[in-house]
Amino acid sequence: MRLAYIVYDGMSWLDLIGVYDPVSRLKSKGYNTEITWEFCAFTEGASDQFGLAMKPDRVKQVLKGYDVIVVPGGVGVKALLAQPNFIEWLKGAEETPLKVATCTGSLLLAKAGFLQDKKATTHFAKQDVLREMNVNVVSQRVVDDGNIITSDTGLAAIELGLYLCEKWSGEEARNIIQRELLFQQ
Amino acid sequence: MRLAYIVYDGMSWLDLIGVYDPVSRLKSKGYNTEITWEFCAFTEGASDQFGLAMKPDRVKQVLKGYDVIVVPGGVGVKALLAQPNFIEWLKGAEETPLKVATCTGSLLLAKAGFLQDKKATTHFAKQDVLREMNVNVVSQRVVDDGNIITSDTGLAAIELGLYLCEKWSGEEARNIIQRELLFQQ
Repeated sequence: MRLAYIVYDGMSWLDLIGVYDPVSRLKSKGYNTEITWEFCAFTEGASDQFGLAMKPDRVKQVLKGYDVIVVPGGVGVKALLAQPNFIEWLKGAEETPLKVATCTGSLLLAKAGFLQDKKATTHFAKQDVLREMNVNVVSQRVVDDGNIITSDTGLAAIELGLYLCEKWSGEEARNIIQRELLFQQ
Repeated sequence: MRLAYIVYDGMSWLDLIGVYDPVSRLKSKGYNTEITWEFCAFTEGASDQFGLAMKPDRVKQVLKGYDVIVVPGGVGVKALLAQPNFIEWLKGAEETPLKVATCTGSLLLAKAGFLQDKKATTHFAKQDVLREMNVNVVSQRVVDDGNIITSDTGLAAIELGLYLCEKWSGEEARNIIQRELLFQQ
């Protein structure tokens, strides 16, 4: 299974790491040793609003050949929605079987035309915007509409990550990873 | 207030971002516009076990002049405990008023001699190791012993971050930020 994490200037690290951490544990704990991922960007920049930056693995390459794309939210989404070149690039993922977004990442999926009449969610302050984009907005932490899975706010990204763990490697894998993340004495 | 986040090869991104995300929101939401931070490393490398890397702001510079150091945990801790040069460098933070660690980051604080007879916690699988280092290990999500604040496992890093938000900017700031992170419909 090949994942592409979509990264950009103004992303939220928590929106990214919330999915990345539990999903990566599928590999480190041996539940799915075949899983691989790349961080894909349209431009070199991939930092949050404060400048905490990563170096993408792929820049401006066509988004083909992945099984999953994961789009985190962040304050940078607003600017990207107004950048036709970025949206065109994202549309390259049209044939990707599973498209995932956390928080305001859903707005980018919608702008690329992937959420037409689909059920999805986003940050509680942006649900009206998503609704205006002809999306069937559902107020839930994690919304699974088959080839589209989205989460709403902040730590729901972790819940989405755990949801993917269960979907791909079963309940036991999810429970072990969840125990590590949410351990209570 | 000046923070130093200590980064290294084999760190856990969630252990870092768990503190970084809520604390950074103190700045973006205007609760503490004076807060600044730097990512400090002893060597150029600052990536997790899978290679997701950041570029540190400071490499091998003396850890002086900070009000807070924050040490995330990660699988790389084991190697660092056996590297006297790294531990010597970390000891440079001796006069830092507040030392914070998430998960196995506590072991590094202990090795540097900062936790002698202090109350602290760490990942549930490493509490015995911390106890053998003459630390008064407490099984709690977040443990505050004055100039040392630690958290145990996984998402407790977020709880520690929220704890710092309240400590530095009051209950209202914490509640607003917590609502964004943990929002339930």
